Amino acid sequence: MTERSIFLLPGDGIGPEIMSEVKTLISHMNDKEGANFKTDEGLVGGSAYDAHGEAISDSDMEKALAADAVLFGAVGGPKWDDVPYEARPEAGLLRLRKDMALFANLRPAICYPALSNSSSLRPEVVEGLDILIVRELTGGVYFGEPKTITDLGNGQKRAVDTQVYETYEIERIAGVAFEMARARGNKVCSMEKRNVMKSGVLWNEVVTATHKAKYDDVELSHMLADAGGMQLVRWPKQFDVIVCDNLFGDMLSDVAAMLTGSLGMLPSASLGAPDEKTGARKALYEPVHGSAPDIAGKGIANPIAMFASFAMCLRYSFNMIAESERLEKAIATVLDSGVRTGDIMSEGCTQITTSEMGKAIREAY
Amino acid sequence: MTERSIFLLPGDGIGPEIMSEVKTLISHMNDKEGANFKTDEGLVGGSAYDAHGEAISDSDMEKALAADAVLFGAVGGPKWDDVPYEARPEAGLLRLRKDMALFANLRPAICYPALSNSSSLRPEVVEGLDILIVRELTGGVYFGEPKTITDLGNGQKRAVDTQVYETYEIERIAGVAFEMARARGNKVCSMEKRNVMKSGVLWNEVVTATHKAKYDDVELSHMLADAGGMQLVRWPKQFDVIVCDNLFGDMLSDVAAMLTGSLGMLPSASLGAPDEKTGARKALYEPVHGSAPDIAGKGIANPIAMFASFAMCLRYSFNMIAESERLEKAIATVLDSGVRTGDIMSEGCTQITTSEMGKAIREAY
Ligand SMILES: CC(C)[C@H](C(=O)O)[C@@H](O)C(=O)O
Ligand SMILES: CC(C)[C@H](C(=O)O)[C@@H](O)C(=O)O
Repeated sequence: MTERSIFLLPGDGIGPEIMSEVKTLISHMNDKEGANFKTDEGLVGGSAYDAHGEAISDSDMEKALAADAVLFGAVGGPKWDDVPYEARPEAGLLRLRKDMALFANLRPAICYPALSNSSSLRPEVVEGLDILIVRELTGGVYFGEPKTITDLGNGQKRAVDTQVYETYEIERIAGVAFEMARARGNKVCSMEKRNVMKSGVLWNEVVTATHKAKYDDVELSHMLADAGGMQLVRWPKQFDVIVCDNLFGDMLSDVAAMLTGSLGMLPSASLGAPDEKTGARKALYEPVHGSAPDIAGKGIANPIAMFASFAMCLRYSFNMIAESERLEKAIATVLDSGVRTGDIMSEGCTQITTSEMGKAIREAY
Repeated sequence: MTERSIFLLPGDGIGPEIMSEVKTLISHMNDKEGANFKTDEGLVGGSAYDAHGEAISDSDMEKALAADAVLFGAVGGPKWDDVPYEARPEAGLLRLRKDMALFANLRPAICYPALSNSSSLRPEVVEGLDILIVRELTGGVYFGEPKTITDLGNGQKRAVDTQVYETYEIERIAGVAFEMARARGNKVCSMEKRNVMKSGVLWNEVVTATHKAKYDDVELSHMLADAGGMQLVRWPKQFDVIVCDNLFGDMLSDVAAMLTGSLGMLPSASLGAPDEKTGARKALYEPVHGSAPDIAGKGIANPIAMFASFAMCLRYSFNMIAESERLEKAIATVLDSGVRTGDIMSEGCTQITTSEMGKAIREAY
């Protein structure tokens, strides 16, 4: 069996604790299943800054580029609030996305049945919810130039960010959304602000044309992004796949994640384009939640999103569909058994630690 | 009593129907209370386009600028999907905001007790909710230049929008947020994406400095806008006043409005700077909901947000606090009596029409 290389970037806060649980599963899969994963580990975010003054080093960047897949924990924390802008923890993540050309960010928002009661929404609104947000990840206002603060004198400054999209960028992310929809509910809703933004006009035009040219078997609708945010809160089950730009995707996927009551459980995948010859694509997998510095080091963080991110990795990077499904099922089984970490604790359940949750999932796998 | 001039812009869709109910109240206040309102009426949005090929005419624009206050209904509808970009219905609204320099958009998100059951959120999460979103309305990506689509040849185009903020713009909207907070719960939460956007960095810096210089009696916190969207869904009662830029304000205020279950009830005020001599400020008042073309002309639209917008007008433009409170109370009383328009209908209530609702509110006033 060929070697499968995974580069681990645990990051800051609870990142290392939750990654450690997945590492144990990886060893277990090597020992018991001959999975032949080869892991290496690097630094990103605040911990990378502390070690060598930047949010990710060139050598770790090279390792990320060379690996079959990257598993990423979380970055950031108050400790690094005052580091220079270019070296802030998030810069490490943004560089990974950009340099690895991970343009397609997949964010499933599913409501685990065992948890529909921990949502702030009524159970009937979220029970069985299963939507997928496809977010463009290497363009838009995140990377457009100019991106500057200019001192105008007289105590005045001017800050500029630039939202830029070209046709090919919209086309390829729309393609991913339509492909994903075909394997699910066959519906895509595209969201932008074409009534205010020229990038929204182009977005709408290109998604429509891509649909017509190659995917007209998929049902396509369009919604203004503000109305989309409203509709996500009102009746999220109307959606199957939502496709949007980098910034709207950031906002809308966080709202969608919170709807499910399963924030600590949600994974994401960031994918590059498939290689024309081999079909292999660069990929990074990370939980949707952040580094939770307030609970870091206490052994109480929820490792489920990290496991679920690894399940996405098994599926998209290694085509290990059976293993991916087994892991997802293991998570659901463990939740059904009534054990919970503190963040999702509810009456009648038993509270357990990060490592107990990790062990339970590995045993159920 | 001096004359009070109000320029009415009913707009499209349900705009004219709901405005008509408020017009009757205005006449009533003139007849019974000697309020001395003088109204004039113009066209905006699609109806203006149909009449003279632009989303608002120069002469109506002049009337809006000359009036003490503008009451605005709603604009847009599928009928105008294909008009030229510069003449689209929304362009009328955007020109009003820009030319009248209405930089401060106040969007209260309150949950009417009688309606806490019509929210998709659990009643305990929204009952008693009362937050105010203060949105910057004349800057940011809505108006920044360049704002273009360029043909690059080869079937490729490039779309650019520009987010621009200068210190003074952030300072003045922060000032409004702090002033508002003093008259409410004394807390402001400022939201931006400083981890990604330079305008977010400047926003954070200027809000912090304004707080320190003039408003340090108010409690100030900062949140990343994506986390803010999450927190609005998780536990909205943690907020009192939220201040943010034009685009984040668009997204976040729509999410906040939908939380309350009272979308058809929510008003907004858009204010300019007070005149240095007279203290008078230009102002436009409009419902948060849209033109609802699907139900237009049927006499079933909910006029409450239009009445509530007029209540804000009485307060902010005419300092008629008692009348404003009476009108707000009339709305609550009518809701408590169990009558509802179709959009907020629920079991055990009596469904009534737009004009019946208008009449009920005027009688309760
Ligand atoms: C950490 C931050 C830069 C990032 C983003 O804004 O993309 C995060 O919010 C996310 O959604 O992955
Ligand atoms: C109609 C549209 C231009 C407008 C906006 O984006 O500001 C609307 O969504 C609003 O929030 O008032």
